[in-house]
Amino acid sequence: MNQFINDRNSVVTEAIDGMLRISEGKLYRLDGYPHIKVVARKDWDKSGVALVSGGGSGHEPSHTGFVGNGMLTAAVCGEVFASPSVAAVLAGILSVTGSPGCLLIVKNYTGDRLNFGLAAERARALGYKVRMVVVGDDVALPELPQPRGVAGALFIHKIAGAMASTGANLDQIADVAERIAQTVSTIGMSLDTCTVPGFPKENRIEPGMAELGLGIHGEPGIEQVSFSTASAAMDLVIDRLEPHAQKGQLVALLNNLGGCTPIEMGILTNALMCSRMGPRIQGVIAPSPLMTSLDMRGFSVSLFSPSISDLEALKLPVGPHAWPGYFQATSVEVNPLPEDLSPTHFNPSIHHPTRELIAKCCKLFTESEAELNALDAKSGDGDTGSTLGTAAKSLQAKIDVLPLADHGQLFQAISQVLSESMGGSSGVLLAIFFAATGDSLTSGKNISQSLIDGLERIKQVGGAQAGDRTMIDALEPALKVLEHHGIGKAASAARNGADKTAAITNAKAGRASYVGAANLAGYNDPGAEAVAILFEMLASD
Amino acid sequence: MNQFINDRNSVVTEAIDGMLRISEGKLYRLDGYPHIKVVARKDWDKSGVALVSGGGSGHEPSHTGFVGNGMLTAAVCGEVFASPSVAAVLAGILSVTGSPGCLLIVKNYTGDRLNFGLAAERARALGYKVRMVVVGDDVALPELPQPRGVAGALFIHKIAGAMASTGANLDQIADVAERIAQTVSTIGMSLDTCTVPGFPKENRIEPGMAELGLGIHGEPGIEQVSFSTASAAMDLVIDRLEPHAQKGQLVALLNNLGGCTPIEMGILTNALMCSRMGPRIQGVIAPSPLMTSLDMRGFSVSLFSPSISDLEALKLPVGPHAWPGYFQATSVEVNPLPEDLSPTHFNPSIHHPTRELIAKCCKLFTESEAELNALDAKSGDGDTGSTLGTAAKSLQAKIDVLPLADHGQLFQAISQVLSESMGGSSGVLLAIFFAATGDSLTSGKNISQSLIDGLERIKQVGGAQAGDRTMIDALEPALKVLEHHGIGKAASAARNGADKTAAITNAKAGRASYVGAANLAGYNDPGAEAVAILFEMLASD
Repeated sequence: MNQFINDRNSVVTEAIDGMLRISEGKLYRLDGYPHIKVVARKDWDKSGVALVSGGGSGHEPSHTGFVGNGMLTAAVCGEVFASPSVAAVLAGILSVTGSPGCLLIVKNYTGDRLNFGLAAERARALGYKVRMVVVGDDVALPELPQPRGVAGALFIHKIAGAMASTGANLDQIADVAERIAQTVSTIGMSLDTCTVPGFPKENRIEPGMAELGLGIHGEPGIEQVSFSTASAAMDLVIDRLEPHAQKGQLVALLNNLGGCTPIEMGILTNALMCSRMGPRIQGVIAPSPLMTSLDMRGFSVSLFSPSISDLEALKLPVGPHAWPGYFQATSVEVNPLPEDLSPTHFNPSIHHPTRELIAKCCKLFTESEAELNALDAKSGDGDTGSTLGTAAKSLQAKIDVLPLADHGQLFQAISQVLSESMGGSSGVLLAIFFAATGDSLTSGKNISQSLIDGLERIKQVGGAQAGDRTMIDALEPALKVLEHHGIGKAASAARNGADKTAAITNAKAGRASYVGAANLAGYNDPGAEAVAILFEMLASD
Repeated sequence: MNQFINDRNSVVTEAIDGMLRISEGKLYRLDGYPHIKVVARKDWDKSGVALVSGGGSGHEPSHTGFVGNGMLTAAVCGEVFASPSVAAVLAGILSVTGSPGCLLIVKNYTGDRLNFGLAAERARALGYKVRMVVVGDDVALPELPQPRGVAGALFIHKIAGAMASTGANLDQIADVAERIAQTVSTIGMSLDTCTVPGFPKENRIEPGMAELGLGIHGEPGIEQVSFSTASAAMDLVIDRLEPHAQKGQLVALLNNLGGCTPIEMGILTNALMCSRMGPRIQGVIAPSPLMTSLDMRGFSVSLFSPSISDLEALKLPVGPHAWPGYFQATSVEVNPLPEDLSPTHFNPSIHHPTRELIAKCCKLFTESEAELNALDAKSGDGDTGSTLGTAAKSLQAKIDVLPLADHGQLFQAISQVLSESMGGSSGVLLAIFFAATGDSLTSGKNISQSLIDGLERIKQVGGAQAGDRTMIDALEPALKVLEHHGIGKAASAARNGADKTAAITNAKAGRASYVGAANLAGYNDPGAEAVAILFEMLASD
């Protein structure tokens, strides 16, 4: 029973209570647990027509999630997939119905028809005006005299809700509801069955197959069909719906039966709008879980041809968050990529001392490749030397096109070369270091301060601190003394920092953090070592 | 591959396009498919601070679903569970950032840190003001120096979004974002792994076990724990969160990791609010899928202690529908059941002819029990006679307390007796018939018209029509002639109608609709037969 429940006998009442706890006092329930589970609007003064729906649970957010301003006045909940009792429905009606009367919106299942039907009679006998509309929108079996009521009922919840909230009377609302019930068409498809709370899942659908024409109570689909792609599945659904669709523009309700991911629903939305009926679909409700069948990995499409006033009603904002709203269908708007995206072109310039310095650095790392690789082999994958060597060679190759005379630009250019030529995290981090340093140089800071800014940035982005056994262990102490004590002291500090890494065996960042202590002890971190030899070379000039 | 996808290489782009098609022109994407997948606000004039987030896909509605007024300005999407490239992030930044600058909101994963980090440098080099906040809210391993960024990042999306929409500057927003990043704590629990699009599901978690301390990329949890109930699971999550929670009042974000049903999320909401930290939780975000891990059947709880201005920012309405809003926590409001719910008490009255008529009817069905059972055994479960016999005995037993002198009341009273004493659909339908008839009698119609109203009501509620092999096949022709041609003609019509049912072998309603034609041919429908013998008895007087 791997579901987040406590007791299969109390799943519905607990879920309702959870919802009520975050309803901000807008909803209440009747004191009838466990038999009577009625959720109703607290902000309701019975001055308009009440809309009551419900049925078995397991279809959430239907129906409690649609109780609120502009939609249902009350929801009467049965146990999972079981109709509520006559007493429960009657309690719901009596709690919310004033002199304008009540419309019962019932999905076509025998239990719901009978229990809502008798409750309606009881309420009438007590003097209430009650009408009932039965929705049977499932077109899975066109010849079926009693088609099931499924997600199409939500068009009535929404449109009748809008009418009630704007003052229409019971007959006006019920007549529109009847018209919608007569014209909305729905079909569902699923790749998997649902899991009834407290029971194991039934594995009825083989891989590569789908069920077409599902109800919302876990019953098998009308037929099993082979499944290849989302688009083919949608086309099949459209094939079945098309003969039932009214003429003219349509609104589609794309319902997640529960277990589809948002990615799948996005793909299905795309497939629906790209299907041959797509051009006729002027608006979409969803894609959301609206009338679910627990965790069933499936979807349904309902098509409805709204009148002008229906469309206004569909668009009217409502209180319940579970209602996703009506979305006008559009094409995909595509904007061009920003122009600055291509690598910046730097104007080459000449500055001999800088050229020489870079060349020496490149030479150092070209020559240190084997040594640094050997060191890295102790704690990582033995490629630090090669990574730096490759980068050095790339930089050397581009030395004549670098903006050598403008150091701010130069650091940005080096960043770009490194990000293009160095692989892995270290390449990105060094690119960030050089870019941030260049940024500070350009803003007028001196080289020492700018290098410290670069260091801070890679600490932030990389998440490593001194003591984590990375190049920072050499770089940070060196840069701390560079400005006021010169390159010699900086080199000593870098060497000292690098050597200390040999004793750091609980690496916290980089690949060494995955390596056991025994393998690290006694060896310098190769990144820190690279920094140290660089500073030592610079100091020895 | 039982998922609604077309091609695993295009799941993200197709899903984005599907979403854009119903974004009503409020969102666009950049022309960079497949490598650059950036979704941004069309209604954005760069006059405020831009908020850019993103990362790997598979966390929908994060991040595209949160692009819109009051939240993100752009989302940069990688492939499923893979960081977007530096170029993609840079494209996102450049597309939406004006002179007020841009805040990058990054969840702590190495790829995201590095790619967003370098993109930030590139943008800075181009003259843009960019700050970046890295969120690492996962407390699964408290000693971890680099905790993962998970659902807690959404507090920043929302609060920074509110600040940006109300004119705060980049440093103000980024400083608040940093403070939130430092203080929000999250932990997740799951009962199942996720299904990466195009790949089979890994079954890593045994029944009866749960994983605690999950990231959002399908990686195993920090530990496996035994799972018993939703409440125990929530208590364990609370145990882990409590040491990290700030003092004072808290806001909880209850996130569906993807595969939980709304019922489970309701139960978990209830469990959270009933946990020992419940009294400290002043408000809740969700329960919704917010930062998912595809279809993982799990949840996460994030706790955050908001300042007064944070709270205002959390409450501010936003454009994106995927944001559920902030819900003040309350207790469950329970209202008393309506008073009229108890069975109506009818005042007994005396009317000898009526008493005699009822007694004769009851005698008829008491004596016909065996005969009608035998007939029903041909097409159903052989209990029509018993059902009617039991009802007749109940009615006979109550005959002295019926309101015999008021026929409107009498029919209501009989309805009540039948609904209490008869089982199954037929009991409810007869109760509806008598109640509706009584209703019409009370409104002043004569008995013939009232009976027709009763008939129409059971046709509506029961969904059966003449020709469907039900009692309607006898009742309808009888009532059609009753008013103008008297009881004798009515009885003939009932008999004729009942006898015709023997030839109806494609029953469309009731239990006989499940029975093969060969088993029905030659036998009257027992309900129709009961109507016929009743009318014949009445006519014979």
